[in-house]
Amino acid sequence: MNFNIAVLPGDGIGPEISIQGVDVMAAVCQKFGHSVDFQYGVVGAAAIESVGDPFPEETYKLCKSADAVLFSAVGDLKYDNDPTAKVRPEQGLLAMRKKLGLYANIRPVETFSSLLHKSPLRPEIVEGADFVCIRELTGGMYFGEKYQDDDKAYDTNAYSRHEIERILRVAFDYAMKRRRHLTVVDKANVLASSRLWRKIAQEMAPQYPEVTTDFMYVDNAAMRIIQDPRFFDVMVTENTFGDILTDEGSVITGSMGLLPSASTGESTPVFEPIHGSWPQAKGMDIANPLAQILSVAMLFEYFDLKNEGAIIREAVGASLEKGVTTPDINESGRRYGTREVGAWIVDYIRNH
Amino acid sequence: MNFNIAVLPGDGIGPEISIQGVDVMAAVCQKFGHSVDFQYGVVGAAAIESVGDPFPEETYKLCKSADAVLFSAVGDLKYDNDPTAKVRPEQGLLAMRKKLGLYANIRPVETFSSLLHKSPLRPEIVEGADFVCIRELTGGMYFGEKYQDDDKAYDTNAYSRHEIERILRVAFDYAMKRRRHLTVVDKANVLASSRLWRKIAQEMAPQYPEVTTDFMYVDNAAMRIIQDPRFFDVMVTENTFGDILTDEGSVITGSMGLLPSASTGESTPVFEPIHGSWPQAKGMDIANPLAQILSVAMLFEYFDLKNEGAIIREAVGASLEKGVTTPDINESGRRYGTREVGAWIVDYIRNH
Ligand SMILES: CC(C)[C@H](C(=O)O)[C@@H](O)C(=O)O
Ligand SMILES: CC(C)[C@H](C(=O)O)[C@@H](O)C(=O)O
Repeated sequence: MNFNIAVLPGDGIGPEISIQGVDVMAAVCQKFGHSVDFQYGVVGAAAIESVGDPFPEETYKLCKSADAVLFSAVGDLKYDNDPTAKVRPEQGLLAMRKKLGLYANIRPVETFSSLLHKSPLRPEIVEGADFVCIRELTGGMYFGEKYQDDDKAYDTNAYSRHEIERILRVAFDYAMKRRRHLTVVDKANVLASSRLWRKIAQEMAPQYPEVTTDFMYVDNAAMRIIQDPRFFDVMVTENTFGDILTDEGSVITGSMGLLPSASTGESTPVFEPIHGSWPQAKGMDIANPLAQILSVAMLFEYFDLKNEGAIIREAVGASLEKGVTTPDINESGRRYGTREVGAWIVDYIRNH
Repeated sequence: MNFNIAVLPGDGIGPEISIQGVDVMAAVCQKFGHSVDFQYGVVGAAAIESVGDPFPEETYKLCKSADAVLFSAVGDLKYDNDPTAKVRPEQGLLAMRKKLGLYANIRPVETFSSLLHKSPLRPEIVEGADFVCIRELTGGMYFGEKYQDDDKAYDTNAYSRHEIERILRVAFDYAMKRRRHLTVVDKANVLASSRLWRKIAQEMAPQYPEVTTDFMYVDNAAMRIIQDPRFFDVMVTENTFGDILTDEGSVITGSMGLLPSASTGESTPVFEPIHGSWPQAKGMDIANPLAQILSVAMLFEYFDLKNEGAIIREAVGASLEKGVTTPDINESGRRYGTREVGAWIVDYIRNH
């Protein structure tokens, strides 16, 4: 393949881990005979500083014409501490999602046995948990009509049949590629929007007779993720519930620094780590590059390049086993820097 | 005091645990020289069967004129399995909240050392966790304007200043009675309603200079509850977020069957266990009555009757230590029935 990749390093530790993702992608392309061209764009606080817009038109065009976006993270302390700032890095994220039509956010929750001891859950509960959260990403309260004055405020949680069908389609298809168990999470006992979600899911289910489809209220799902995470295979839900549940899911394995995600939809897909920009660690060479590197694996897999994805996963597994890890994971042994871990993975890929 | 108590046993295991709550309340009143009168009302599936309304006018009047409501649980399998049912037990719950103006749902999350082994979290993480979730209960998407047809649907998440102020007042006051740490949970980086919540909380905070007030996004809170539950003292949030976070919070201690709650507001307060109606166990004398019994302790404490609450808590603690517990807790020793546990607690209260 000839890859055109838009690289958006963003803020905080973003640039450091971005480099490791790029190096790994280059190494894999070389090994498998793909060519790859990386073009860089600004986003987030970095883009506000340089051009006054957290997702500038130029960056949009770059993404639009690329095959995929390799994204890192946005967010800066300066804005977190200033609630009056009119333009904020997060708006760049939301603009990117909306403009690229990234309606499906896909977040695998995986356990790594060498990291189980970092999980807040008892190992016997979380061991072997392996599920995918699919979050609708361009609808609901995030983008619905809003109003605020000094005495009242509202947000609108609106969904159209079209928006619901296309995300459920992604979820059913994902379930077909996995253990064929889909859990649709909603609050149909209270919300009209949830009732439409449930109705459409019930209409679509017969088209996927091999998939076991069940429904769960969001409050129940928030409990089940902790009590019995192995129950889940593929979980799908609307934007706001997905925001909460995917983050809840991301901490149960103790491997937050290792979890990648994909956002796909109408045009260019975006691959990114789920952790944030960790501005406090910027430039310190301590950030874990593995989530970014695994997002490159997801990128290859998106294009059905299974072996390319597999070699990355193998290299990451080997680095964990050998203890070649950043301080967030490695509490006792020798601590490796962001660059060292990335270089180790690149070496592994070249030599295997 | 002369207590007029409205007792709403409801569905499933409700009636069985209700009796234990009533017996405990009667025993405490006798011991401390209060008189108490119990009047019974129907609610939930039981009320649909008998009068076609899950919260009938008669029950409403009974509650309205009582000093407090002792509620158990509503919900029946018959309705869970029939998505077309027009009248559902849960509507009784929502009607009760709205009609009695129960805008503050107060849910303590407490650990019991004898139950820590039942927590899905590692003991070193959850041990000593002790916080209170305060959920706004009569606003937001639950009661906002709704619409649904076959092609689109929406819910409205609306809050007025008045609604926000009164629940924050409850939260600040609670924080003053505890460790003086209040966490306001919202999604102010995305939602207009959250921005109004945050603005009002920031305006009110200077009135409580002794309270450390902090703000946390809901996705972050969903992680923090699992990773570091001891961080929290009092947490306050809007209805939908509260639905999710209070349930998440309720399972981290392993003591779901022991957690009571209070709903307070414009008129009669309601005290209830947070677990549901567990229809599968109905009539089997296996349901844990402790959450219902502890909700009686909350009732006394609401009326500033500290010793009355304390003797109940002491009795519950003693029953746990002695292993006088229902099968959900007692996995190996002799298993006690709902009635036996209740009777043991009553005896303890009489003799101490
Ligand atoms: C930064 C914020 C707007 C964003 C969201 O809520 O979607 C983030 O929490 C996420 O989940 O990607
Ligand atoms: C039954 C349902 C309507 C209710 C709610 O969502 O409020 C329940 O989940 C609760 O939390 O009390």
